[in-house]
Amino acid sequence: MVKVGVVGVGAVGAATALSLIERGGMCREIVLVDLDSRRAAGVAADMRYATPLSPTVEVRAGGYDDLSGAAVVIITAGLNEKTGGATDRSDPEGRLRLIGANAEIYAGIVPRVVAAAPEAVLMVVTDPPDPLAVLTRRLAGHDRVFSTGTLIDSLRFRVHLADRLKVRPRDVQAMVVGEHGTSEVLLWSSASAGGTPVLDLLARCGEPVDLIRREIEDDIRFANITIIEGTGASQYGIGVVSALLVEAVLRDERAVLPVAAYYPPYGTTLSLVSVLGAGGVQQMYEPAMSEDERAGLERSVVALREAAGRALAVLPDGT
Amino acid sequence: MVKVGVVGVGAVGAATALSLIERGGMCREIVLVDLDSRRAAGVAADMRYATPLSPTVEVRAGGYDDLSGAAVVIITAGLNEKTGGATDRSDPEGRLRLIGANAEIYAGIVPRVVAAAPEAVLMVVTDPPDPLAVLTRRLAGHDRVFSTGTLIDSLRFRVHLADRLKVRPRDVQAMVVGEHGTSEVLLWSSASAGGTPVLDLLARCGEPVDLIRREIEDDIRFANITIIEGTGASQYGIGVVSALLVEAVLRDERAVLPVAAYYPPYGTTLSLVSVLGAGGVQQMYEPAMSEDERAGLERSVVALREAAGRALAVLPDGT
Amino acid sequence: MVKVGVVGVGAVGAATALSLIERGGMCREIVLVDLDSRRAAGVAADMRYATPLSPTVEVRAGGYDDLSGAAVVIITAGLNEKTGGATDRSDPEGRLRLIGANAEIYAGIVPRVVAAAPEAVLMVVTDPPDPLAVLTRRLAGHDRVFSTGTLIDSLRFRVHLADRLKVRPRDVQAMVVGEHGTSEVLLWSSASAGGTPVLDLLARCGEPVDLIRREIEDDIRFANITIIEGTGASQYGIGVVSALLVEAVLRDERAVLPVAAYYPPYGTTLSLVSVLGAGGVQQMYEPAMSEDERAGLERSVVALREAAGRALAVLPDGT
Amino acid sequence: MVKVGVVGVGAVGAATALSLIERGGMCREIVLVDLDSRRAAGVAADMRYATPLSPTVEVRAGGYDDLSGAAVVIITAGLNEKTGGATDRSDPEGRLRLIGANAEIYAGIVPRVVAAAPEAVLMVVTDPPDPLAVLTRRLAGHDRVFSTGTLIDSLRFRVHLADRLKVRPRDVQAMVVGEHGTSEVLLWSSASAGGTPVLDLLARCGEPVDLIRREIEDDIRFANITIIEGTGASQYGIGVVSALLVEAVLRDERAVLPVAAYYPPYGTTLSLVSVLGAGGVQQMYEPAMSEDERAGLERSVVALREAAGRALAVLPDGT
Repeated sequence: MVKVGVVGVGAVGAATALSLIERGGMCREIVLVDLDSRRAAGVAADMRYATPLSPTVEVRAGGYDDLSGAAVVIITAGLNEKTGGATDRSDPEGRLRLIGANAEIYAGIVPRVVAAAPEAVLMVVTDPPDPLAVLTRRLAGHDRVFSTGTLIDSLRFRVHLADRLKVRPRDVQAMVVGEHGTSEVLLWSSASAGGTPVLDLLARCGEPVDLIRREIEDDIRFANITIIEGTGASQYGIGVVSALLVEAVLRDERAVLPVAAYYPPYGTTLSLVSVLGAGGVQQMYEPAMSEDERAGLERSVVALREAAGRALAVLPDGT
Repeated sequence: MVKVGVVGVGAVGAATALSLIERGGMCREIVLVDLDSRRAAGVAADMRYATPLSPTVEVRAGGYDDLSGAAVVIITAGLNEKTGGATDRSDPEGRLRLIGANAEIYAGIVPRVVAAAPEAVLMVVTDPPDPLAVLTRRLAGHDRVFSTGTLIDSLRFRVHLADRLKVRPRDVQAMVVGEHGTSEVLLWSSASAGGTPVLDLLARCGEPVDLIRREIEDDIRFANITIIEGTGASQYGIGVVSALLVEAVLRDERAVLPVAAYYPPYGTTLSLVSVLGAGGVQQMYEPAMSEDERAGLERSVVALREAAGRALAVLPDGT
Repeated sequence: MVKVGVVGVGAVGAATALSLIERGGMCREIVLVDLDSRRAAGVAADMRYATPLSPTVEVRAGGYDDLSGAAVVIITAGLNEKTGGATDRSDPEGRLRLIGANAEIYAGIVPRVVAAAPEAVLMVVTDPPDPLAVLTRRLAGHDRVFSTGTLIDSLRFRVHLADRLKVRPRDVQAMVVGEHGTSEVLLWSSASAGGTPVLDLLARCGEPVDLIRREIEDDIRFANITIIEGTGASQYGIGVVSALLVEAVLRDERAVLPVAAYYPPYGTTLSLVSVLGAGGVQQMYEPAMSEDERAGLERSVVALREAAGRALAVLPDGT
Repeated sequence: MVKVGVVGVGAVGAATALSLIERGGMCREIVLVDLDSRRAAGVAADMRYATPLSPTVEVRAGGYDDLSGAAVVIITAGLNEKTGGATDRSDPEGRLRLIGANAEIYAGIVPRVVAAAPEAVLMVVTDPPDPLAVLTRRLAGHDRVFSTGTLIDSLRFRVHLADRLKVRPRDVQAMVVGEHGTSEVLLWSSASAGGTPVLDLLARCGEPVDLIRREIEDDIRFANITIIEGTGASQYGIGVVSALLVEAVLRDERAVLPVAAYYPPYGTTLSLVSVLGAGGVQQMYEPAMSEDERAGLERSVVALREAAGRALAVLPDGT
């Protein structure tokens, strides 16, 4: 039976597990692991009562040993922007504190996950996901590691574009690449709907495209602030996204998505166009980009390398 | 477009909305209303980013006016056992405090909901749901009012029976009737799986049935304590249940379920066998019961009437 | 990746495959095998174009060798009541001709399926399913064999009961056991809805229960004639049922259903209450029955043994 | 309750109805209408027995009057390429015979549908869909008419591109526009996956792009021949597609899809980029096209106008 582990049963871990249960795909068993074992037990007991209403999935709390045989382990453990004191994402000190604290936590978690589930694909959700995925890959000693990267950012981009175009977001093609964070790059040049560049479609609306463009970027920023002010941290969107990514791996979907994996040409983990299926990210490529976008991606790579360095600093050999 | 309102966007309200989005049934638009409008806005903004991954549903925060045209309004607002200081369910003082506090809250909410959405079916989720449904019916002045009643209790009963029988819970038929609370009645006499009484099936396991029976009742109680100790209050199971009940109304499913509505022969609102569809509960009947079960139901009716009286005490005329 | 084989791509095989694709459960790959390889290829090519609209499933035509590694193989090959000249189900000669012809076909198919997929669970759908399952079990040399049995009959019973009770069929508990054929036994005594015997519920309708009972049995019979006159043979209902049974096996649902497997106490294959999960039917038991029902079941067992004998007659050793 | 009508219950009509039942979206009631009322009754009786296994949908046979109140009516009635003697799609005589015969049939059907369901959106599935949609629009006297157009062709294009790119078809963006027929235009220039033109992605495979391009076009043609040789006519793919289009209308999805509606600038009905939602196609635009593609589209428009003229010739006034 296909088993999935969730390490860290905070708001994001719980939303992910609930989505896995309700969507009823390949996953047959969910093991919830949390430092606070009473919380994991409480969430498992609560969710069990929802399972008769969905395709059969067993959900239970467990320890690391119970991850044995898991096909995918999702790691959401760690401090978030709020609990880690980094609510102001533009505050570099705050972000750095978050990397250090969560890298320490990962250094404690990953070896235990890998010992119990050496064949599992590892999916990093904790912020900042990309540097933590670099660390996770190093600790795991294998390449079946990816992070949720900029998929949630891309969904935000698509939702706000769709608002303007008055169509459903599913049919807007648009990606954000690079870092899941301040240096992320919105790929306006390749964004399209119905085989036509969105910049052309927006131009037909009558307003100057540059203005609409800035407004959409503001919409995204404003929505993020709305979430943080309202509930402390994003949890529902990222939870659903995480469940879908797990399904893509379990079903070997070969889904084309902006999630982050280690990309040898840049020597770090970042979101590009990734093909996600059995074993994790099977292939990555760089999408068509304008010169500005490429320059933005290079700046993002620099930021990511630096952040990865800070995450790796928790390792005994300091590398 | 079919609109559903959620009044009270705490953990239960949010889990309900997420389930409505992911299950993608009849619901096309969700309006989230909360006293803390920033919380409603945050949850809506967060969930919006999950919607491209499901059948189209619009989710947004709003005020009471935005409930206009809603087919169903779910009310989850109020203090829960934890925030209301009633963690010990057997402490009668705690429970009574909860009734009074939540009845006051409902007295403020329901008239505004009914003014905005006079045609809506009203579903009461807040604890204690049955007395609050009595109050809601009085405030609304119509009969399209029901509460989630003992459906979640029935699922718990089924899950733990299924554990013993080693079959999936969906195929165990078992109900809890009466109060969603300490006086609830587990209908052992009519519980069955595959056309055979579960008491007969359990008897084949070799252990004394009375012992197994007590163990199962303990399992249910223990799971409830596990949930409360782990996360403060049940939220995921009840959220999924609530989404399914809404769908049963919107789709006119004529589902046969133990949810609570006003039952004239007893002059109060309680869970019996109810047929749920367009307009709410369309029909209610009393299931087959043993003498003990019937006596238990009568005690539950007494408790419910008394609790309903306390809820109604918030009305100006004191009735 | 989880593979399912379909041997026989007539109307039933195709409806089953389409349901497997649209329901998107555990199945990841479908192999269609038909004597007329052009038909299998045509159906596969046609269905492929529906797959982008559902969770990823690969569907392709193949030979027996391509069944290698299949978790379940569904056999729908053979003549049906119409092509086999047995449109009048009450005509014993017609039915017997069907057994002989389809047993010959199975004698050619099953060994090739088992050679290619020795670990697969085998599901028999071809009419008459129960004797053919006896033959299949003998040919396969293992016990991972079951037939769709009386599940479709039970759904018919439930649908027509639900019509009278004005509730959804999902919430009516009612089974047909014994043969999928003229000697089948409708279990009126244990049929229930909402924990109450349907005979009691029907009695409340005001008409004499015996009359309603005969009318419902007529409704079922009349619906069957309507199907045969309209399209030659049942295909959509049984196709959906087959897809659900496959899912129950793949997901190890431990579903409680009236499907048919070999039952040692009776020395033949018949539908009783069966627990369906990994490996096929894991457990069987006899439901509560009235004396009349039990007598009917015994007559059905006699008929089934006799029919099984005819099916086994195609074996070289005549047993 | 949301009602959908299906006029013409052949293989395509039945596959559409089955998909509507299994997918369980907004549709609550399906009415099947066929010249052969026994066939409609047989299919309805058969499918009813599948409905307890899906979200509640009522399915029944009826006459035109029973379409009253339908939100969408799907028309699949008519001869198909096989029964109409037009198996060789490149044979212009065969195709023209098909237009004439099916236009006569539509002239009999559409006024009766519109009389019964004046508010319904009409979806034309019968071949050739685009000229028949022109005729339907004229007969209906309103604009809530569209045809399945080139959506199935676009899915074929996507499936075969995805084969080469080794990704799932859902993530390949590619459209076919113009006629659903020999003059259709594959939009290679705007086809993309992960924000990158497929022509660039295919170029990376090492083979000359022109060669791969011809091979893919051959793959599509060959698959079509495989379907026709195997089962006489496409039915499963188009059935699922039809169910999804109905859902897009019922749910007001504002889906961006290549379906065909009347486009005033060209004075005829053809597939361009269409926004499908409440009321049918809400908006249409021409996608980005290369010069060759635009020239191809213009040729397709000429062919479509000519075919529309032949369809309209069945009207009394000959226009």
